[in-house]
Amino acid sequence: MKAALLYKYNEPLRIEQVPEPVITDPSDVIVKIGGAGVCHTDLHLIEGVWAETLGTALPYIIGHENAGWVHEIGSGVTNFKVGDPVILHPVMSCGKCLNCRAGEDMHCPNLRFSGLTVNGGYAQYLKTTERALIKLPKGVNPADVAPFADAGITAYRAVCKAAPLAKPGTNVLMIGMGGLGHVGVQVMRELGNADIIALDKNKDRLNMSLELGALHAVEANNQTVSQVRSLTAEQGVDIIIDFVGNDQTHAESLQMLRKGGTYIVVGYGGTVKVPSLQLINSEISILGSLVGNYNELHQLMELHARGKVKLHSTKYSLDEANDVLKLLHQGKINGRAVLVP
Amino acid sequence: MKAALLYKYNEPLRIEQVPEPVITDPSDVIVKIGGAGVCHTDLHLIEGVWAETLGTALPYIIGHENAGWVHEIGSGVTNFKVGDPVILHPVMSCGKCLNCRAGEDMHCPNLRFSGLTVNGGYAQYLKTTERALIKLPKGVNPADVAPFADAGITAYRAVCKAAPLAKPGTNVLMIGMGGLGHVGVQVMRELGNADIIALDKNKDRLNMSLELGALHAVEANNQTVSQVRSLTAEQGVDIIIDFVGNDQTHAESLQMLRKGGTYIVVGYGGTVKVPSLQLINSEISILGSLVGNYNELHQLMELHARGKVKLHSTKYSLDEANDVLKLLHQGKINGRAVLVP
Amino acid sequence: MKAALLYKYNEPLRIEQVPEPVITDPSDVIVKIGGAGVCHTDLHLIEGVWAETLGTALPYIIGHENAGWVHEIGSGVTNFKVGDPVILHPVMSCGKCLNCRAGEDMHCPNLRFSGLTVNGGYAQYLKTTERALIKLPKGVNPADVAPFADAGITAYRAVCKAAPLAKPGTNVLMIGMGGLGHVGVQVMRELGNADIIALDKNKDRLNMSLELGALHAVEANNQTVSQVRSLTAEQGVDIIIDFVGNDQTHAESLQMLRKGGTYIVVGYGGTVKVPSLQLINSEISILGSLVGNYNELHQLMELHARGKVKLHSTKYSLDEANDVLKLLHQGKINGRAVLVP
Amino acid sequence: MKAALLYKYNEPLRIEQVPEPVITDPSDVIVKIGGAGVCHTDLHLIEGVWAETLGTALPYIIGHENAGWVHEIGSGVTNFKVGDPVILHPVMSCGKCLNCRAGEDMHCPNLRFSGLTVNGGYAQYLKTTERALIKLPKGVNPADVAPFADAGITAYRAVCKAAPLAKPGTNVLMIGMGGLGHVGVQVMRELGNADIIALDKNKDRLNMSLELGALHAVEANNQTVSQVRSLTAEQGVDIIIDFVGNDQTHAESLQMLRKGGTYIVVGYGGTVKVPSLQLINSEISILGSLVGNYNELHQLMELHARGKVKLHSTKYSLDEANDVLKLLHQGKINGRAVLVP
Repeated sequence: MKAALLYKYNEPLRIEQVPEPVITDPSDVIVKIGGAGVCHTDLHLIEGVWAETLGTALPYIIGHENAGWVHEIGSGVTNFKVGDPVILHPVMSCGKCLNCRAGEDMHCPNLRFSGLTVNGGYAQYLKTTERALIKLPKGVNPADVAPFADAGITAYRAVCKAAPLAKPGTNVLMIGMGGLGHVGVQVMRELGNADIIALDKNKDRLNMSLELGALHAVEANNQTVSQVRSLTAEQGVDIIIDFVGNDQTHAESLQMLRKGGTYIVVGYGGTVKVPSLQLINSEISILGSLVGNYNELHQLMELHARGKVKLHSTKYSLDEANDVLKLLHQGKINGRAVLVP
Repeated sequence: MKAALLYKYNEPLRIEQVPEPVITDPSDVIVKIGGAGVCHTDLHLIEGVWAETLGTALPYIIGHENAGWVHEIGSGVTNFKVGDPVILHPVMSCGKCLNCRAGEDMHCPNLRFSGLTVNGGYAQYLKTTERALIKLPKGVNPADVAPFADAGITAYRAVCKAAPLAKPGTNVLMIGMGGLGHVGVQVMRELGNADIIALDKNKDRLNMSLELGALHAVEANNQTVSQVRSLTAEQGVDIIIDFVGNDQTHAESLQMLRKGGTYIVVGYGGTVKVPSLQLINSEISILGSLVGNYNELHQLMELHARGKVKLHSTKYSLDEANDVLKLLHQGKINGRAVLVP
Repeated sequence: MKAALLYKYNEPLRIEQVPEPVITDPSDVIVKIGGAGVCHTDLHLIEGVWAETLGTALPYIIGHENAGWVHEIGSGVTNFKVGDPVILHPVMSCGKCLNCRAGEDMHCPNLRFSGLTVNGGYAQYLKTTERALIKLPKGVNPADVAPFADAGITAYRAVCKAAPLAKPGTNVLMIGMGGLGHVGVQVMRELGNADIIALDKNKDRLNMSLELGALHAVEANNQTVSQVRSLTAEQGVDIIIDFVGNDQTHAESLQMLRKGGTYIVVGYGGTVKVPSLQLINSEISILGSLVGNYNELHQLMELHARGKVKLHSTKYSLDEANDVLKLLHQGKINGRAVLVP
Repeated sequence: MKAALLYKYNEPLRIEQVPEPVITDPSDVIVKIGGAGVCHTDLHLIEGVWAETLGTALPYIIGHENAGWVHEIGSGVTNFKVGDPVILHPVMSCGKCLNCRAGEDMHCPNLRFSGLTVNGGYAQYLKTTERALIKLPKGVNPADVAPFADAGITAYRAVCKAAPLAKPGTNVLMIGMGGLGHVGVQVMRELGNADIIALDKNKDRLNMSLELGALHAVEANNQTVSQVRSLTAEQGVDIIIDFVGNDQTHAESLQMLRKGGTYIVVGYGGTVKVPSLQLINSEISILGSLVGNYNELHQLMELHARGKVKLHSTKYSLDEANDVLKLLHQGKINGRAVLVP
């Protein structure tokens, strides 16, 4: 089959023919890929940011935002049959450990992460397990929803952490209106009731965010902090969800947060630096948020099935993988790019 | 009356005669001080650490851990009468704002903080409001419980944030077994069920912590991180409560925290620095915790009334205030020092 | 002033001239009534249903859903001035007890309930306290929002209890689309994400509920249980909010509830009867919900200020009080009736 | 193997030789029974109380509180090996449905319940699945802990529902100090901080409950309600956990519950009858509680491993099953009886 492999950090992926995956365990499922979303984490993987943390041997196929059709099933698979359209939770969790049994797939110590620690979906076929699959409703094209598998649930989980705080009369700043952010605004509109302030450098994205549910749109520049503070009567914001996560967004977020506020970090790359005097005197909370669990993806797909969350995406062929990654790096992708093999 | 006043940062307090406070509002109460606890924050106040944050005009009387007897009441006071033994919540909150009505006295925008923003309890008398008072049971000597008013509730609130996570089979590291820490261990033993690991430089304090409910005691040295990790089967700890809060405890805490763990910061002075990659990949939470609210102090006093939390304290005369502060600075106070006027 | 007084149970109110209320406490506020909502509880008060529970001496002025303008203030009132348009939380809570300090005004042991235990708003003027007042935004006519003061927050609080359970993919049955129910549907649409099934005898109300956010509307008849169950693939509903509360709605609710479901009771008059075998084997929860607290009313007014919750109401003159109560008894009021003095 | 089978409702079990269970699925595990607890639900099963609800075909082996040693494992079992001492969660859940993935094994629509819907542990061997097993620490005799498998987690889960409410200064009434109740008192002592009032007809059990952590012990008689109310300064109790669940305990509980209180029902047999006026005016909650999930059993075993929860039990031979059931029916078993095959 055709696939895009990472052979060496900081070099383009190589698109080549590799053997198809084969069933080796009763719970295995081979999925024919309908679409694979292109994520900033893919850029970070190529840059080697995750090399030490993950230790995955090169080469391997990246791509962790996958949807498609069931192609072949292991002998123990009971809930899916060949041909079923499916979206894939990005990790294969064991289902037996205490974390899995508490619903937290991402904290499974036995987890395998498609496209990060094992082969992913920049390919025609991918091997996963039954536990990772969610059936799509009839009429839904897998390529249209693939980005929900990671950008979607990552935004969804972050908003779930914020939602109980997002009561009528509060406000939330959402930083970065790209693949995650534009889903995040919609989920916040659905799950919370805070006034949403969208922040981005790009005017088109800001306009989109206003259409999707933001109340205010602020263009990121050297006036960001004062502009946001003035929108909150100089009190600061109750909740910040940072989909960018660089040194600048970290530093500015700490200047914009209200006493008692919560800073949820989703994007990464920078370092959060906060004096403990500020941490305690303002009694703020800083929460990391990592992807999302299976039930969260299920809930997100229920929202999508009711037309409450829409995905802005553009399809490209798998052959264009390196070009698309370049566009993403340049900030030229609105919404999400999806590779169709 | 006699009182100890802060005239100039980084100079000893001046102990002198000043006018007694007078009732000016129907809800005012004058309390005859039975004892005032001596807190690290008093050191920080003298050092000027809080000068910019608070902006309190000098000179003023410090002391925010107060208990005593009702001496005089305003015309609107209904729940207390002259002679009642009382402990004082350290802040006077307005009772009308949304934060007060949600129970969060510390977030009242109209708050006055005895000993920080207005005159405190290093004195014979102090003026507060009815809302700040909790009646003591018969037979309780105010000087014996005064430190609950701040060291106590500060530890109590921090443990309350941790308790829902402290399920059987988890563990919690508590850093600093001084005035706050030795209360914190007892409250954690009562409200949670995690295995408690106590950390301190001082062996006497560690022995005390084992008697009060810690399962393990670790002496702080350059092996701290590896020792704590080995106590957790190299998984790291689920919860850390840091009563010290300097650069070293911040850095080490981030090395000892388990995936999915929670770091609660109570002490202050250093800077927490955490790469957002770690924040999200380990999905950790960092929570500031600030004093505690009235109902939390009430609950703590209920624990104390049932003999479930004991205070280790030593009494000194108000005239010794500067000497006691010096001993505290040198780490020579076990438990808490209380000034009796 | 003119007022409508309850002199004898099961007899019409007497509309007559009575003395205006006078300020007796520094926190007192006299409000000139702009509108007073007419509630089923007013019918129950006249029927004597509450006589034993409350023990209020007759005669007195009923009316607990009040809004108007500040007419006179006590010497201790700081946040309001004469002329301010206000909505009134229905109870005067003490602000000092543990329940008040936890935000739960309705559980204040010292509570006075306007229109139930003390004089209410079927009158030109009413005496309340500063703690009960919420300022209305400019341009809002008190008579237009008065029903939020009780019908509104009662629905709001019930939905708040349900909202954390109302995740995408779940469903909620709301019984009774009258004064409370039509607000409840809107609040559920805003705070939760369950599919809403509205139930009522009246087709006009059902149509209104569909416009306000319900997904399905079911006409109450002897097929109710089977119709609702068929809308849930025979699994039963996850959440029921019962704004009616008679023997029939209680019995049917227990037949429609899903395993693990939650039954929230708001309306009253019947008796809930449930075998403990069902209670445990289906592991269901039955929750009473009582009015709402001050902060909940504040949040509801924030929703209203953003145009997210609308009130369907009709104005009548205070002189028509008995006629309006009759119409309400006959089920002929859509939304809420408001008496304007 | 030898086993005790239910052939006909309301008749003694027949103890006879039956074929041993055999592995049919890769996840199956055959356990050699070390002990099987004898539960009131076994009495109810024999009485036919569950016949309609469960529809299990007769004859079958009852016994749902099981512990023993792994005897044989299926090909897909990875975490256990032959000889491991284990305690069995009473149900085999699928691990794939949304409820299992949220941790709620008892709500799995595919659940099989050992001793209720499939063969149980009144036998020498029992077939379960890997998902149901928890490894016991070395040196723990399975027969000594078997009752934790059902009596234990059922009490544990009920207390978990109460624990967040059981703050210092509150009180909890626990009705029935038998197999569940004596564990419940200990778990409440560990997880909550309410003052515990134990209620039972039997003085020995009441004395045991005082040793295990109850503050007050009340003998059940026709003064129960007034005695309990007087222990609470006539305010009623904040929380009731009813391990008995007959008409009398249901009716009395509703008379003893405080405004805002919570009534948790664990035992069953009677009918809870509550006027909705009381439900809303007192704003009480009534919660059914059903067994417990796998992680709850894990936590309970962690408590036990730390010596924080002890089981009072007496061993009998499997041949004595009918005699033991009779003793249980007569209220003559203190703690729990365990059948050893």
